[in-house]
Amino acid sequence: MAVSSIPRQTLMRLPVYLAYLRGLGAQAPVHISSASIAAALNLGPVQVRKDLACLPCTGRPKTGYVTAELVHALEHFLGYDDTANAIVVGAGKLGRSLMSYSGFARYGLNILAAFDSDPALAGTQYDGKPILSMDRLVDLCGRLGVHLGIITVPAEAAQPVCDLMVRGGILAIWNFAPTRLTAPEDVLIHNENMASSLAVLSRHLAERFKL
Amino acid sequence: MAVSSIPRQTLMRLPVYLAYLRGLGAQAPVHISSASIAAALNLGPVQVRKDLACLPCTGRPKTGYVTAELVHALEHFLGYDDTANAIVVGAGKLGRSLMSYSGFARYGLNILAAFDSDPALAGTQYDGKPILSMDRLVDLCGRLGVHLGIITVPAEAAQPVCDLMVRGGILAIWNFAPTRLTAPEDVLIHNENMASSLAVLSRHLAERFKL
Repeated sequence: MAVSSIPRQTLMRLPVYLAYLRGLGAQAPVHISSASIAAALNLGPVQVRKDLACLPCTGRPKTGYVTAELVHALEHFLGYDDTANAIVVGAGKLGRSLMSYSGFARYGLNILAAFDSDPALAGTQYDGKPILSMDRLVDLCGRLGVHLGIITVPAEAAQPVCDLMVRGGILAIWNFAPTRLTAPEDVLIHNENMASSLAVLSRHLAERFKL
Repeated sequence: MAVSSIPRQTLMRLPVYLAYLRGLGAQAPVHISSASIAAALNLGPVQVRKDLACLPCTGRPKTGYVTAELVHALEHFLGYDDTANAIVVGAGKLGRSLMSYSGFARYGLNILAAFDSDPALAGTQYDGKPILSMDRLVDLCGRLGVHLGIITVPAEAAQPVCDLMVRGGILAIWNFAPTRLTAPEDVLIHNENMASSLAVLSRHLAERFKL
């Protein structure tokens, strides 16, 4: 799995800073310091300062960042001002809810189409987006230059889907299937596992009630 | 934030092992070694052995684990054989798709009801589940002994929701709002941030195309 030049944990915090700054709305101060962002988000000030150092805009020692510039730098860095096309494989409940999630537009993500191995679904539409048969995946990704793929199939079907995506030129895979995938070095796989999150939560409850 | 006696990363891998073992279905061998699980999932064999060591079932040096026993131990440890009731706050698109996601039953999660501050939604139902007004949250959680809360409101509304949940006796919070929450020590907060995942994916693409 390829490693970005910026640590994954840093990348994952940047949208949190942006959401906080956007949330200030009309109350946003003209200047904001990394220390006050850290305090508001309950994070360490050194960590916030280091995270923001990967952006091209620089804070002044006393006044901090110009808030509007920081928001713009974060949006640009995160690619929110530039739309990335994506495809979803697996048009089940989860796949369909991602297809119809309008919030992705704010993050510069546009889902073009879904693919499904179920012949009853292929050729239909969901929320105005086509659901296509699997044999069109490689060709369509190549032709339209789609590089981001989302996997929402059951665990046992995920590796063949990943292989197809790689053949179609997909370079970043958002994997919602509860399994590990193998892909060439230059393809990034990011696992989103709801069951893993639930494991953390339910274990906490189980341990609480054992006491 | 409370720390479980088992590392969070270990907990997050256990459902991956279980999904793999369940996926073997009829082809599952009677015995399975941690090394073969590691190989199939592209993980380190030492890591898998250490992770599985937190379970009460033990593998034999040569033959490994009895597969059925390992599946059962994982299901029990993860609480899949015991249902935890949960509430959702925020009956928007994301909240509703969680309410109607039937897959949660497999993970022992049962969403009882949702709450929303929109008076037009309060008193309605979605997928057979009630959407209630916010002022009923504390009382309902306390009365029904609900300890798991899911937050799917916008970032700026999340902290007051978290505070209400804590007052209602919620002990584990699954936070989908892109912000950090503050809660007492004994309340576990697990952040699920789609924007953070997207940041990792889009940055990878941006760096690829800069080359």
